[in-house]
Formats: sequence, C-alpha cells, structure tokens
Amino acid sequence: MGWEDAYRKKTPLSGDLFGRSKRLHVNGVSHNIRFFEPYPFVTASSHGKSLVDVDSNSYTDYWMGHWALVLGHRHPAVEAALAAQLSRGWMYGTVNEQTIELSQMISDAVPAAERIRYTASGTEAVMYASRLARAATGRDVIAKVDGGWHGYASDMLKTVNWPFSEPESTGCIHDDRIVSIPYNDTERAVSILEGVGDRLAGIVVEPVLGGAGCIPAQADYLRGLQECARKSGALLVLDEIVTGFRFGHGCVYEEMGLDPDLLTLGKIVGGGMPLGVLCGKEEIMEIANAKAMSRKERCYIGGGTFSANPASMVAGAATLRELKESPAIYERINQMGRDARASLGRTLEGRAQVTGRGSLFMTHFTESGSVVDAAGAARCSGQSLVRYHMHIMAYDGIFILPGKLGAFSSAHTFDDVRDLAEATERFAAADTESISPASPQDARERMAREAIAKFHSL
Amino acid sequence: MGWEDAYRKKTPLSGDLFGRSKRLHVNGVSHNIRFFEPYPFVTASSHGKSLVDVDSNSYTDYWMGHWALVLGHRHPAVEAALAAQLSRGWMYGTVNEQTIELSQMISDAVPAAERIRYTASGTEAVMYASRLARAATGRDVIAKVDGGWHGYASDMLKTVNWPFSEPESTGCIHDDRIVSIPYNDTERAVSILEGVGDRLAGIVVEPVLGGAGCIPAQADYLRGLQECARKSGALLVLDEIVTGFRFGHGCVYEEMGLDPDLLTLGKIVGGGMPLGVLCGKEEIMEIANAKAMSRKERCYIGGGTFSANPASMVAGAATLRELKESPAIYERINQMGRDARASLGRTLEGRAQVTGRGSLFMTHFTESGSVVDAAGAARCSGQSLVRYHMHIMAYDGIFILPGKLGAFSSAHTFDDVRDLAEATERFAAADTESISPASPQDARERMAREAIAKFHSL
Repeated sequence: MGWEDAYRKKTPLSGDLFGRSKRLHVNGVSHNIRFFEPYPFVTASSHGKSLVDVDSNSYTDYWMGHWALVLGHRHPAVEAALAAQLSRGWMYGTVNEQTIELSQMISDAVPAAERIRYTASGTEAVMYASRLARAATGRDVIAKVDGGWHGYASDMLKTVNWPFSEPESTGCIHDDRIVSIPYNDTERAVSILEGVGDRLAGIVVEPVLGGAGCIPAQADYLRGLQECARKSGALLVLDEIVTGFRFGHGCVYEEMGLDPDLLTLGKIVGGGMPLGVLCGKEEIMEIANAKAMSRKERCYIGGGTFSANPASMVAGAATLRELKESPAIYERINQMGRDARASLGRTLEGRAQVTGRGSLFMTHFTESGSVVDAAGAARCSGQSLVRYHMHIMAYDGIFILPGKLGAFSSAHTFDDVRDLAEATERFAAADTESISPASPQDARERMAREAIAKFHSL
Repeated sequence: MGWEDAYRKKTPLSGDLFGRSKRLHVNGVSHNIRFFEPYPFVTASSHGKSLVDVDSNSYTDYWMGHWALVLGHRHPAVEAALAAQLSRGWMYGTVNEQTIELSQMISDAVPAAERIRYTASGTEAVMYASRLARAATGRDVIAKVDGGWHGYASDMLKTVNWPFSEPESTGCIHDDRIVSIPYNDTERAVSILEGVGDRLAGIVVEPVLGGAGCIPAQADYLRGLQECARKSGALLVLDEIVTGFRFGHGCVYEEMGLDPDLLTLGKIVGGGMPLGVLCGKEEIMEIANAKAMSRKERCYIGGGTFSANPASMVAGAATLRELKESPAIYERINQMGRDARASLGRTLEGRAQVTGRGSLFMTHFTESGSVVDAAGAARCSGQSLVRYHMHIMAYDGIFILPGKLGAFSSAHTFDDVRDLAEATERFAAADTESISPASPQDARERMAREAIAKFHSL
C-alpha cells in the first residue's frame, strides 16, 4: 500500500469533513499553504508535541502553529494564564495592564524595541514598518530579498516565489515600489540597492529566510545591508517574526552586531494567540504619534480592534516568562535541531541537504549544490520533499506541513529526534523515485515545473 | 471640582501606569483612538456590561470592545466555549473542525457568503477585498466613501478624516488609486463614479458609517451604488464589519435589497477574539484559489499564521449560536438603542442630534443641520462631545470612548438607559460652555479646528 492509500485509510472522517470545508471555503482552507494532496487532515485538538485529527490519529507536530509554539501545544503555564484571563475578559478595547507587562518583558529582552505598537498579525506589522520607513525617509522604494516572506500586505507582495521575476498576484498595484535583492550575496545586493539611489526608504530582511527555505543569513551579509542602508539614509527593518525568541531569549540582531531601526515580531511573543509587533527606535516610532505630530507629518498607524487584546498579551507574557526562567529550553531545542539536521543529512546523503538554525530545520532534495538562498531552495525537488513529508505523515504519524520547514519545541524529546530519523530512513529505503534528473539540460525546465509545484499553494 | 479633577482623583494608579505605558508605547497606546486626555484609565478586568480599572473603578461600558461584544464582556456561553477550547489547544495552524462549524453558521445566516476566508483582522479582510476587486475586474481604482473607515491597510487609507481632501498619512504611496464619494448623496456619488469610467474596480461601503459618525446609509443610496457598480462592471463590496449580526441574525444587505459581490465581517462574528472575514460570491472568491488558478490568474490571498485559529472560531460560533437561539436579544438591544437616542435627543434638544441605528448611538453637538454624512458629523463640536463623555466617565462611571459612538449589548438593561439619560441631564445642566459659535462667518474656521481636534487621535 502506497502512502496515499495509507493516509486515506486512516483519515476517512477528515476526508469527509474536508469535502464539506471545500464547499464553505476557497480550496477548503483559510491559508493557501494549509492545503495538501489528497486532502489535509482535519484537526480536533492538540497537546504538547501532538496534533490529533478527527479520526483520532495523533501526529508528532513539527509545524507547531506556523512555528509559533516554541513551548509546544497547550503549555501549562500559558494555558493557566489564558484561563485566568478568561475570567477577567478577553477583549477590552482599552489600554490595559496586561499590555504594559508584556511590553516591559519585550523591552527588557530586545533593547532595540524602544517603542512598541501591537497589531493583530505579522502581515500588519510589516505593512506598518514599510509605511513608517517611507514616512521617516520621505522616499518610496522598499527593498526585500528574493524569496523573503513578510505576509500578505500589498506593500510587500513581490518576489516571494521562484523565479522572483513574475507578479505574485493579480489585483496588486503597488509592486513597482518594491525592489528585490539576492540573499546572502552582498555584492550583488549592494549593487542593486545603490542603483535605487535616493529613492530607497528601507530594507526589509529576515535573519533566517523562513518560508523560502529555512536558510540562515550570513552575518556579513546583513551587516553589509545595514551599512548600505546607513550610507543611503534608508532604514534597516529586521523581520524577526520567525526568529525572535526562537534561538534565545531575545532577537538575533544583537549577536550579529546589527542595529536595526525597526523590528517586527510575532509568533512566539504571542504564545500562539494572534499578535504582531512593530517596534524600534524611539525617533522613528514617534512619527506614528498621532497626538504629537500634525496630520501632514504623522505616519498613520493605528492598531485595530484587536491590538493589545489582553488574551494575546497574557499568552505572550506567560511564554516569555517561561522562556526566561528556563533558559535550558533553548539549549535543548537547539541541540535537537542540530541532531536532527545531522541525522537527516546522514540518512539522505547524496539526495538531500538539511538547512536550518537552532531548532529549525528543512530538508532540500538535491544531488548537488549548496542551498544558500531561495533560488537554491527552489531548484531542489519540491515533489520529493512533499513525498517525504506525506510518507512520514501516513506511516509514522509525523507532521511537517508538506514542503515546509520543521520546528522543535520544548514539548519534543530526543526520542522524537530518533523517531524522525528512523522514519526518514524508512522513507529513504522505500522511496524509489528519482530525486533529480540525470541530464543537466533538463534541469532548468524541471526546476521551473517543480518550483511552481512546490510553491503553488504557498 | 471639574470633571478633570474628579477623573484624576479617582484614577491615580491609572495615571501612574499610563506614564509607564508612554515609555513603552507610542503615545502610550496600541491604537490611536484609545488615547484621551488627561490619560486613559488602565483596564484590569471586565464582566457583563462593565470595565474595571486598576483603581477598582467600575464603568458601564458602551465602547464594548470596539462594538464587538454584542453579548457583553465574558458572556458565559462564550467563556465556556473558550475555556473548553483551551483544553484542546488555541493554535493549530491547520484545517480544523472548529472552522467548519463557524463557517456553516455564517453561511446559513449570510447567503452571500458562498465562500469564506478568515483573516486576523478587519484591516486584512478589506485589504483582500480590494485586491480581489482589482483582480476580478482587471481594473485599478477602488471607490470609498468620505469618512468611510475600513481599517489601516494601505489600499484603503484615504478620505478618512475631514476635510477628506488631505493625505491621511505620510509614507503611503498608493492613494491615487482610491477615489472618494459623498455619503448618502446618490447623484453626486454616481457622477464621480461615472467619471472614473472603466478604471473602477469596486465600491467599498459601510451600511452604517461607523467611525465617521454612526450614520445609517439610505437604502436608495446603497442601491444606487450597486446599480452604478453593475453598469460599470465593478464590484460592490459591503463592509459589514460593524453591522454584521449587530441588528439581527445576519447582515444588513438583505433587508436593503442589496446583492453584494464581496462582504467583509469581523467584530461580532469573532466573539471578541481576533477575527476578520472575507466572503462573497463563489465565482469571485475562487479567483483566490491558489490550487485551481495559475500564478498569472490567481489573486494571492493567503490568510496568515492566525487565520482560522480555533480560539477565535469557537468564540465566534458560541456568539452566533447564542444570538440565534435568543432572537429576543436583538429586540431588546435595538429598543434600548431607540430609547437612548430618544431620551438623549430630548435632553440635548437644540444642542445635539443623536444618530444611530438599532443598538448603536452617537451624539453630535450641533445647533442646526441634519447629520447625514461624515462632513455633517465633522461640523459638529468634537470638543463638546469629548467634554460630555469625560463628564459622565468622571462623575457617573459611564464609558463611551471619548468622541466615539456607543453600543448596547445584551448585558445592558433598561436601567442603564435611564442612568445614561440622567447622567446626560446632569451634564447638560452643568456644562456651561457654548456648543457652537454664534456667527456663521467663524463657522468654517471653527469647523476645521474642531474637526482636526476631534479626529486628531483617530
């Protein structure tokens, strides 16, 4: 029995329910990347390291709520904080003490967060960051990285998917004000940025390329971008939505010797509750002060109905408190990530590379070449990766969102690392389909086809 | 003792804490409109009709979480649903049965919601609606209403504040693709829309102008806009984020005989948890189907980390269930709204008009003229309104966000209507400052000054 039959056999209720979901939702989902063939299982509950579907299958979860749940599902401290907040209300619509507490914790751990504004999502946070960069500089062009993913705001919707030269979406009218630079290639990036000249408002970049391949930035590269921004009079905006509080109690920018003007946070700092954070240098953030600035000067960044809602605030604060009080968590999950990258790399040697950093890991099926940017990731076999993820989902109850990266949480154990390695060995032994074509002349067409297939449902 | 002294005297801890909040946040808040002078109280908890601040003052709350909490704070059914969900997890990041349940309820009550996508906020929902309108039509101009408020997305950030002719924000580069039309003036609106010609992608409009004055749209006006959209080949996008499930179990468009292409929902359908909804006709929504459409055809609307998170889903479902099972709620809160408008109108006769619909009400201090659009609302005395709201906050423990509209919830009683009326009588007797200047020649300058003051912190 192949993996698809095995998967269908164990998920009949999911199959039925997803059919119903397709009649209610576009392609059955509320986020494109959550769809996979033949159909995604339908989740009923979660706990610790596990997702449980409506057929009562349990999956060891490495997707972990889009990598937000660094403490795993339903961490007791976060659950207790949320339960206590329920009995005080989950929506005030007013200034509240829960916000001040979370902000103090962020401020203590992230010195660059001199002033903070909360949003409902990371998409909103980066939208505001790009607006603020334009407002602060009086310029119009935002630079991003090929493959950089910063949410769905119109201001950032360009060069997300390979080949990074075609429009991402119909209905977008603004992408002529976005310029894209290669990742981890300082020379070419700087050359493009210099070409933008005094129209460059800001450079938005992730310290670990997330959606596009889980690829760490070289510190020299980021420092080169920062130097370029400083020279030009543009802002450096670090998108640490994935990386903030992922590898240690704070952000990545400090150890890299960076001094960002603006930072965006999300995911972990919300404890799994909806949250985005825009923060940065006081003099930049204060341009959004609608009380101090005239209408002609102000950058209009409001928040929204749900900004700084107390439920998100306490979930975030409980998470950061737990992480601060138990620094061993980072040692442990970072070690699990290293072990996983090493063992998967050994098992799939000659067939795949495993990239990542700390507790993040991603497998790239390729027989050659080093994956250091989104183009390199897109050249790998998306089909093989999906087949791998579906295989371990069907046979081993291991869930990595097909085609995506995985994340360890404090709820995982080193036994899980071993189980993942053994499941990968079984996949490697069973999978007889070739990973990449033999003849280089086919490579470009195959790359295009596979890249499109891989990113089709991003 | 004036209201400011009375307010300061009863809120010393709030004063201290807000001072701390100002060192952490831009102007101390995460949403511009939540700031008011001398400082906003800091909320500690909420229940039923009440907000309680850190000084243990209790306020009868008419702000009600940006009007999201139609069942009041901490409705037992919603709290129970959230508590039960906590023990199953608040963040899956995957397709889940909680989503299917809420969508079925929305779909049953809102026939135009043929396909649904969830977002983290209303801002995101309207951003996607405008993108989809452009994608569906291949056109670029979005029409909105003078004073129409659809969140902070760059695509909709124009003509929010009087005089509706100046940029709302620095750092915005797209507002040349937004055209603005007057509210409740079909002839002038149609004339402007016809001038846009075949560049018109969509018309985005609220059935009750929310932020700009709580002013119901005339049904003929909305039907005129719809006819204009149909003739032009553009889409009608109804923003029912405020009005959806506010006046009855469904949307306003049906009783108005409208047939919108796209609808946005939020607030009430999320039960106070973060939620936005983009929904509408299948053939339009399917343009966002990343599986069925090629990259060149698709409108790229993804969702986000928090889209369709199970906590928001169950809070929304519990709220809609309660509203469906207890239709008397609507009769009651709508009657409270009517009673409040009538009694406040009587008390403030000659000084103010009270607009609204159903359970929504807003006071406009003006000695003349009918408030039928945002310009009319902006011509009223924002200073008097803020003074009124601060007066009843300081002396009577009644909270309406200063300068904004109020909303009844099922947690309010007819005694609250009476208390509000009596507090208003005391304000009217005590308030000796003039509401509007005697000489018409001063009016324009005053209007400008007051409108800017009124909207300064919007």
